[in-house]
Amino acid sequence: MEECIFCKIIEGKIPCNKVYEDEYVLAFLDINPIVNGHTLVIPKKHFVNIFDVDEFYLEQVAKALKKISLHYKTIFDGVNILNASDKSAQQSVFHLHFHIIPRTKEDNKDLWPYKEVENKIDLEVMAEKLKL
Amino acid sequence: MEECIFCKIIEGKIPCNKVYEDEYVLAFLDINPIVNGHTLVIPKKHFVNIFDVDEFYLEQVAKALKKISLHYKTIFDGVNILNASDKSAQQSVFHLHFHIIPRTKEDNKDLWPYKEVENKIDLEVMAEKLKL
Repeated sequence: MEECIFCKIIEGKIPCNKVYEDEYVLAFLDINPIVNGHTLVIPKKHFVNIFDVDEFYLEQVAKALKKISLHYKTIFDGVNILNASDKSAQQSVFHLHFHIIPRTKEDNKDLWPYKEVENKIDLEVMAEKLKL
Repeated sequence: MEECIFCKIIEGKIPCNKVYEDEYVLAFLDINPIVNGHTLVIPKKHFVNIFDVDEFYLEQVAKALKKISLHYKTIFDGVNILNASDKSAQQSVFHLHFHIIPRTKEDNKDLWPYKEVENKIDLEVMAEKLKL
């Protein structure tokens, strides 16, 4: 897409700090890392987010996420994998991307805002509402 | 695995609030939701996390993540998808799982701890260190 910054990175019109590339996927460092090694993994075809990505590219991205995570495990201790789909979910660049956040035992970070929701709906009621 | 709580859920030995199931994947509500509709998506075979999951099950989980997310988009506005792999990444149950966190325009939540790392390593140096 003409105005998509990630498409421009894929086309080489904007530089990036690449860590991995194959025919279908590109991975590069986030320019505003929340930890050192903060990486973005994107399909080389334009999709907005999880809602419109096709199955083939989603599989390629998933395989790359695993491959890169395994490699990072030799350098760090663990990873968080994060995706935001839709502006309401704090997506800021509208080209599908997964963040890989390398973690170490010593990083003392709390990347998981694990507070229980205040107005908790009964889980049985909620499951009934949500089930596919 | 005998001592794995998610394996017990898969086997029906522990109840869950199921929202989706197919031959390879189960999705159910988190009992400690950080938002209403907080969902866990797991493979029906035991893997610890992203590091040991096999390609086939990873694909099945990815397909289910998309399917459930698309369905949730008809009820909410967006989703975050999160995974923690390794204790250092705040993984607490050691059976691979992805969280789907439904989001709405009005939820006023900040699930993204977007603060730039303090001791930022030069990205070129970091990419050189990390590249596959």
